[in-house]
Amino acid sequence: MRLEDVVAGIRAGDAKAKQAATQRQQRLTKPPGSLGRLEEISIQLAGIFGTERPIARNTTLVVAAADHGVVAQGVTGYPQAVTAQMVLNFLGGGAAVSVMARTRGVELVIVDAGVATPLPAHPNLRVVSAGRATRDMTQGPAMTREQAEDCISAGVGIALDAAENGAHVIATGDMGIGNTTAASAITAALTTTPPRLTTGRGTGRSDPELQHKIACVERALDVNRPDADDGLDILRTVGGFEIGVLAGVVLGGALARRAVVLDGFVSGAAALIAHSLCPTVLDYVIAGHLSAEPGHRVTLKHLGLQPLLDLDMRLGEGTGALLAAGLVEVAAACLSDMATFDEAGVSDREPGHPTEPSA
Amino acid sequence: MRLEDVVAGIRAGDAKAKQAATQRQQRLTKPPGSLGRLEEISIQLAGIFGTERPIARNTTLVVAAADHGVVAQGVTGYPQAVTAQMVLNFLGGGAAVSVMARTRGVELVIVDAGVATPLPAHPNLRVVSAGRATRDMTQGPAMTREQAEDCISAGVGIALDAAENGAHVIATGDMGIGNTTAASAITAALTTTPPRLTTGRGTGRSDPELQHKIACVERALDVNRPDADDGLDILRTVGGFEIGVLAGVVLGGALARRAVVLDGFVSGAAALIAHSLCPTVLDYVIAGHLSAEPGHRVTLKHLGLQPLLDLDMRLGEGTGALLAAGLVEVAAACLSDMATFDEAGVSDREPGHPTEPSA
Repeated sequence: MRLEDVVAGIRAGDAKAKQAATQRQQRLTKPPGSLGRLEEISIQLAGIFGTERPIARNTTLVVAAADHGVVAQGVTGYPQAVTAQMVLNFLGGGAAVSVMARTRGVELVIVDAGVATPLPAHPNLRVVSAGRATRDMTQGPAMTREQAEDCISAGVGIALDAAENGAHVIATGDMGIGNTTAASAITAALTTTPPRLTTGRGTGRSDPELQHKIACVERALDVNRPDADDGLDILRTVGGFEIGVLAGVVLGGALARRAVVLDGFVSGAAALIAHSLCPTVLDYVIAGHLSAEPGHRVTLKHLGLQPLLDLDMRLGEGTGALLAAGLVEVAAACLSDMATFDEAGVSDREPGHPTEPSA
Repeated sequence: MRLEDVVAGIRAGDAKAKQAATQRQQRLTKPPGSLGRLEEISIQLAGIFGTERPIARNTTLVVAAADHGVVAQGVTGYPQAVTAQMVLNFLGGGAAVSVMARTRGVELVIVDAGVATPLPAHPNLRVVSAGRATRDMTQGPAMTREQAEDCISAGVGIALDAAENGAHVIATGDMGIGNTTAASAITAALTTTPPRLTTGRGTGRSDPELQHKIACVERALDVNRPDADDGLDILRTVGGFEIGVLAGVVLGGALARRAVVLDGFVSGAAALIAHSLCPTVLDYVIAGHLSAEPGHRVTLKHLGLQPLLDLDMRLGEGTGALLAAGLVEVAAACLSDMATFDEAGVSDREPGHPTEPSA
């Protein structure tokens, strides 16, 4: 599907359904507003699914993996081979995201979006690779425009397939040694923020290592001078294949009218690109958690999103999104399945108490 | 079981198992610390269950309901009959907590701890009522010392039964028109904090109504002069039957060596009482969420607890605890079921990177 057709096909959330859901929340057997953020999310879901009683039972988490040429600059402490090893760990069920998905009944789609090390075929591995690792963005563009379009298009297809297969909620996750460096560059470029504010140490990099990482991001932006108004150009110059796929997942999720739950910093960079291409995606996007990576706050502020969880996590893999998707499922269930005051025969507030009691 | 035997039977968490779990977290296939609060919780769970690979799959939520004589003072906007109506709504499956429990596979135990309106017998309703509503605490003690002991003892029994029936995690929830007024008085008394800082408006009470509620709490403390060092005396004078039962659930959960996940402000007041009787309960207690009720911050600070969730919720019923229990289950699963670097054949950090990479 051509990118311009995807963008043209994304419609705003259903305002009437949101209004009906807002009114329904007032009639449910609880003080109005007492479910806090869950009520907000439920109303967003009504807009997404076009009904005051949305169903959001099934979550599919797309974990896209790829490698990054910028690791040649020594921006990370793990060897590049870890990207492929972790993909095998995802498939083998030993990674954090694998354990969480089993515990929570979440469907995992693992995507080779451009891993450097060749991976054996596996029934649960989807290969959409646009290349084996990006080029080093400090030396020139990370990928070609065609590659950028290809990986977004692949992500759109993955989201449409997930929706077709019954996913109501599509969560995003990433794996890629070096990809916080790419995410820092994307975030700096798209939000016009200095790289020192978008680049983190992970928690463990030493000060000189962090300074070097910041310098690499600055160099990548200097060398490539990406167009801040063009998400596709930013993906091409300083992006990553898995980030492009995830940007496509965000766009495809919105096109399919599904809730899209974002993980942390790297998924946030993908969302920035998707938003740059089509601002309406925000009607479908929910920020799953606040990453401990400092640049993530810049992302969320730019997008105007408030994260559901803040657990000091910074793993990626979609672990934060997966946990938040559970809250999204519950938010929909409460709106759709709770009894109203009338149905349950519960007395509503007494006259003279126009607003909520303290119970 | 006599209260002094319960308290004497509660042992500290297993320090060796916690140490082993801390080391195991370093070997799992993720950057150390990258699961943030989930890692902390997992180590606490290792201490609770006495093993470096704890299992926490099954959650039982105890929702205790009772009525409060102080409603005669006009401290709340809903009629007292709502307590009983909501218990029927819990049993009928229409309340928020009912919907969440179904969605999440959580076992519910609904307890009539002293509801004013007679309730029909129901197979899923446990009756441990020490009386039909407390007396008005602004006029004298809310209950007798015997009633206070009885409701704590009943709560201990409920927790022991839940553990016996397979619960690894025991969550607490409350229902009781007027019970935030009791919780405000308990919190003020046990933390020696002025009532104006422990008493909230719910979100909707007008300023004069809030001032009246604060005045009622002040009067209750003046009239009764509870002993700030004696949780049982505080329960007797300004407590509630459901709060006593929940204090017992906290103690019983600790005695049975189960994780106890607290809901918000009212559950927090119960935890304050349990903690006053036996400080070691803190080894077993996890703060599920931060309630929007302002006094809850006072509770958590006094207990030194950091909540897992902050979703601006203030419903009670155990809804916050239920959501947080899901995170606790995941925390245990990650610690116990993730692959180590050795098992998965994943390369650990390169030499020269003593701390975490940014992935």
